[in-house]
Amino acid sequence: MLYCALVHHPVRARDGSAVTTAITNLDVHDIARSARTYGLAGYFLVTPIEAQHLLAKRILDHWRTGAGARRVPERTDALSLVRIVASIADARDAIDSPYVVATAARAVEGIARRSFEEERARLAAARTPTLLLFGTGHGLTDDTLRSADAVLPPITGPGGYNHLSVRAAAAITLDRLRGKLGTGWTG
Amino acid sequence: MLYCALVHHPVRARDGSAVTTAITNLDVHDIARSARTYGLAGYFLVTPIEAQHLLAKRILDHWRTGAGARRVPERTDALSLVRIVASIADARDAIDSPYVVATAARAVEGIARRSFEEERARLAAARTPTLLLFGTGHGLTDDTLRSADAVLPPITGPGGYNHLSVRAAAAITLDRLRGKLGTGWTG
Repeated sequence: MLYCALVHHPVRARDGSAVTTAITNLDVHDIARSARTYGLAGYFLVTPIEAQHLLAKRILDHWRTGAGARRVPERTDALSLVRIVASIADARDAIDSPYVVATAARAVEGIARRSFEEERARLAAARTPTLLLFGTGHGLTDDTLRSADAVLPPITGPGGYNHLSVRAAAAITLDRLRGKLGTGWTG
Repeated sequence: MLYCALVHHPVRARDGSAVTTAITNLDVHDIARSARTYGLAGYFLVTPIEAQHLLAKRILDHWRTGAGARRVPERTDALSLVRIVASIADARDAIDSPYVVATAARAVEGIARRSFEEERARLAAARTPTLLLFGTGHGLTDDTLRSADAVLPPITGPGGYNHLSVRAAAAITLDRLRGKLGTGWTG
């Protein structure tokens, strides 16, 4: 069982300080659709701000049972995966002792990285659930990375540029961990 | 040389008819950042609507030379790849006879698919430029798919759900065609 979480707190600001970012409608939708595509069991939105829980709930209600559900039923499918929690600890508790995999685009000292191949193989064989953490803003904090069981490498292409959107990074990460390889890709 | 284009016309509506969609700020940003990450030579926004050209130009000016460029210089890098054109034909003309690769999530009769592996290998060896087409709305039209040199398979995970956002589909496609494989992924 694979779960993911989009963390809005605690995350880094540009200057490295810890901040809380706002939930955005498109992060909810895009990552829910990617999570649904790759067979995830749940997608947690993590923020301690209660007003943001209400906002997220309004978005979800519209697409799960409101006008959106009638117009675009595939969205209902995807958004049914979303759960709103106050902290990373609450997401962990909701799953019952998951193996936690963090992601970080930046270089971080003293953090050992596990390759995508290793995590893909571990995931395919794992009996315990896995929780995959994505940071908004300028990424997850050092404390979050240090407390994870594994940290994936930055996603880079031929050059060194790695300022992907979190929506793109989440999509690529899920594809690398769960996408159909080999002949599965030939359609 | 690899280029991509986000097509706003002609694309399909839910009922299969051909329509024109609106440019969205986040499609411009997300796909530009993915294009920059994977070393693309250019990213075309395709729409025949002149008012949309002005809108896109305002977004680009803000991030290339305006307040955005001073605040987030990585965006300037990414958005410098963007060019606005009126049609797919204009994008082709701007590149000089590219090999055109289309993408389609839906099943289409009479269209031969080329696998991601085949296209990745062709691209690595190619001397002629390649133009990769992504459709907004409900995807590229049959005419566009038939006139392409190759069509990639739908992106699916373990299940059959394939309603990814175009931002996620573009990110995954670029990673499959250009991402660092094997030891490159270990960071």
